[in-house]
Amino acid sequence: MWAEAKNRRTIWQDTLGQPSAVHIIDQRALPFHFRQCTLDNSAAAVAAIAKMKVRGAPLIGVTAAYGMALAMREDPSDNNLEHAYTALLNTRPTAVDLRWALETMRKGIKEHVLQERSAFAFALAADLAENNVRICKTMGDHGASLLQRCWRKKRKNAPQSAVLNILTHCNAGWLAAVDWGSALAPVYKAHRLGIPLHIWVDETRPRNQGARLTAWELGQEGIPHTVIVDNAGGHLMQHHEVDICLVGGDRATRTGDVANKIGTYLKALAAYDNSIPFYAVLPSSTIDWNIHDGVQEIPIEERSAEEVECVRTANGPERVVAPGSAVHNPGFDVTPARLITGIISERGICAASPTGLRDLYPEHFPQEHHRA
Amino acid sequence: MWAEAKNRRTIWQDTLGQPSAVHIIDQRALPFHFRQCTLDNSAAAVAAIAKMKVRGAPLIGVTAAYGMALAMREDPSDNNLEHAYTALLNTRPTAVDLRWALETMRKGIKEHVLQERSAFAFALAADLAENNVRICKTMGDHGASLLQRCWRKKRKNAPQSAVLNILTHCNAGWLAAVDWGSALAPVYKAHRLGIPLHIWVDETRPRNQGARLTAWELGQEGIPHTVIVDNAGGHLMQHHEVDICLVGGDRATRTGDVANKIGTYLKALAAYDNSIPFYAVLPSSTIDWNIHDGVQEIPIEERSAEEVECVRTANGPERVVAPGSAVHNPGFDVTPARLITGIISERGICAASPTGLRDLYPEHFPQEHHRA
Repeated sequence: MWAEAKNRRTIWQDTLGQPSAVHIIDQRALPFHFRQCTLDNSAAAVAAIAKMKVRGAPLIGVTAAYGMALAMREDPSDNNLEHAYTALLNTRPTAVDLRWALETMRKGIKEHVLQERSAFAFALAADLAENNVRICKTMGDHGASLLQRCWRKKRKNAPQSAVLNILTHCNAGWLAAVDWGSALAPVYKAHRLGIPLHIWVDETRPRNQGARLTAWELGQEGIPHTVIVDNAGGHLMQHHEVDICLVGGDRATRTGDVANKIGTYLKALAAYDNSIPFYAVLPSSTIDWNIHDGVQEIPIEERSAEEVECVRTANGPERVVAPGSAVHNPGFDVTPARLITGIISERGICAASPTGLRDLYPEHFPQEHHRA
Repeated sequence: MWAEAKNRRTIWQDTLGQPSAVHIIDQRALPFHFRQCTLDNSAAAVAAIAKMKVRGAPLIGVTAAYGMALAMREDPSDNNLEHAYTALLNTRPTAVDLRWALETMRKGIKEHVLQERSAFAFALAADLAENNVRICKTMGDHGASLLQRCWRKKRKNAPQSAVLNILTHCNAGWLAAVDWGSALAPVYKAHRLGIPLHIWVDETRPRNQGARLTAWELGQEGIPHTVIVDNAGGHLMQHHEVDICLVGGDRATRTGDVANKIGTYLKALAAYDNSIPFYAVLPSSTIDWNIHDGVQEIPIEERSAEEVECVRTANGPERVVAPGSAVHNPGFDVTPARLITGIISERGICAASPTGLRDLYPEHFPQEHHRA
C-alpha cells in the first residue's frame, strides 16, 4: 500500500546481491517514526516476532517462513531445522498462521538435500508472501462487494447519507499482512471503487495498534477516519453511527468462533445488540480445523504487565499505572460464532457456522461432505 | 477513607478561621502525586469541576454547592446567585446531581435575606456533603449484604473458592463522592466484614480514572486489585473470573437506564451474555425522574480530543495519536435497564425497572402509586 511516498510491503527481500537480505518495517516506531530494519539471521526473525517489530497473524507467518530460510542459510541440518521451527513457533501461542507457515516450510525443506535447502527455503518463503498478497487482494474484492451492497442499502433507506461508517478494532491492515491486509483490504478496495467511507478506529489498548498503525495506514492512503477509545464503540452503535464492523482474526474454529485482539468480543456484543453486521476477515490459514469451541480450546497469550503499565507514546513508553497495583494482560479474546454475521475468506463470504464453512471448505468436512 | 496515612474526605472546610476556606484533593495529580488545593472563590469551584480536579457525580454536586456558597460570600445578590448557578451548571452536562445540588442551594439561598446568605449557603453545602456521606454509607451497607450473599453462594457451589471477584469501571469510589463512594462503598463495607475480595479495575480510557484513582483508592485501603485494559473484561467474564460487576452512575432514568462513564454499556453486555450480575450503585439524586429513555434523552457530553490524543502519564500528558487523525470523545454511554440486574440506592436494592424504582420511590410515581 501507499506509505511514505511509495508503494510498500511489510517484508521484502533485496533483489540484488547474495546472500539475500530480508527487510521489515519496525512497526513499534510508527506512527511517529518510519523505520526499516534488516533481519540478518534467524535469531533476528525470532526477536522481530517476539518483540512485535512485526505483528498480525499473516505477517507473523511470513516472517517465520523467512526465519526458517535464514536458519537454513546458517546451518541446513535437520537439527537446526527443528531448532528454528521450535524457536519460531514459541514466539506467539495464539496465531495459527504461524504454525501453518512453519509446517509448510519444514515439510518442503525436508524434501531437499542439505545444499539445496537455503535456496529452496528463500523461494518458498517468497511464495508464501506472494500467496498471502493474492489471498488478501481476493478477500478485499469479496469484502468490497459486501461494502458496496451495504452502501447501496444505506443510500436507499436514507438518500441523504454521505458516507458508509465502518468500525474496526486493532490493526488488520496491510501492516498485519504483507500487503492489502485482512479487515482493511475491503476498505482499500471499496475506496478504489469510489464508495465514500469513514472508518472508526478503536485505539486498541494496551498496545494501541489502532491509534498507531490503523490510523497511520488509513491516513497514508487518504481514507477518512476517526480514532476513538475502545470504550466508545458501543455508544456509537447505539446512535446509528456504525453501519458495519470489520475485524481480522488470529485463529478461528471449524464452528466459526474467532479469536482476535482483546476487546473484539465486546464490539461483537454491541454490534449484535444493535443489529449491526459484524464480519471477520481472515485467510483460511487462520482457521484451525481441529477445534470446535473457541472459548474453551484456543490458548490465549498472556502478555507482559509492562504493556498495560506503560503506554507507548510519541516519547516512548510512559507509566500510567502506579507501582503497587497488580496487572493482568490477556492478548486476545474469542468471539463466539453466534455474534458473527459472516466470515470473509479467500473463497468468499460464508456464515460463521460449520455449515457456512463447509460450503466453502468441503475438504475439511470429509464425513459431512460424504453424507451431503 | 484511608489515604496517605490518615482518614480523608475529598472536600472539606477549615474548622478554624473566617472566612471559611474550602479544600479539595487535586485528582488530576493522582496516583503519582498527592496534592491538595484551596477553592478561594466561586470561579475556582467552576474551574475545579470543568478541569476535573474534582469529578464523579456526587462530588461534582457538593463542589458546586460550595461554589454557590463562595459566590454568596463574594456578592449575595440575586443577580450573582443566577450567574453562579449558570456558570456551575454549564461545567458538565451529563451529571444530574449537579443540577439537583444547584437547585437545592438556589432555593434555600433565595429564602434568606442578603446578609444571611453566605453563612446559610456554607451551612447548607456542608449539610449536602454530610448527607452524601450518609447516603454512600447506606448504599455501602445494602451492597455489602449483596456481596455477602454472592460470596456465600460462590462458596457453596465451589467450596475451594478463595475470593469474590468484582469488576468495576472508571472510579465510583470515595474520590467520586465525599467519602465511601457509590460502587466502591459496598466493597469497603464488605472488606470490613471480612469477605475476601479481589477487584478487577478497568483502566477506563481516555482519562484512566480506573488505573489512576480506583487502583490508588483500593491500594490505600489495602484491598487486593488488578488493573486491566478496558478491552479485557469480556474475556475475563467468559472464563468465570468475574462474579459480579459494580458500577456507579451519572444519570439514571425512571425506567432504570443508567448513563455512566463511556464503556459501561460494553461491560453490561458482556455480563449479560455470561449471566453475571451487574449492579449500578447510585444515590437517588442521580435519578432523573423526568425521563424514560436513557439512550434517546440523556445528553452525552462530548469532551476534548486532547483526552484521547494524549494519555495522562507519570510525566504528564503524552501524545499517543499522531497529528492528522480526527478524534471523537463521547464521555458517557447509556446502559439500557434490560442489561442491569439491579440498582443499589440509599433506600435499598431494586430491579432496574419502573416497577422496581416505584417500590422504593413511590413519591415519584404518583399516578401509578394511586392505582396500586
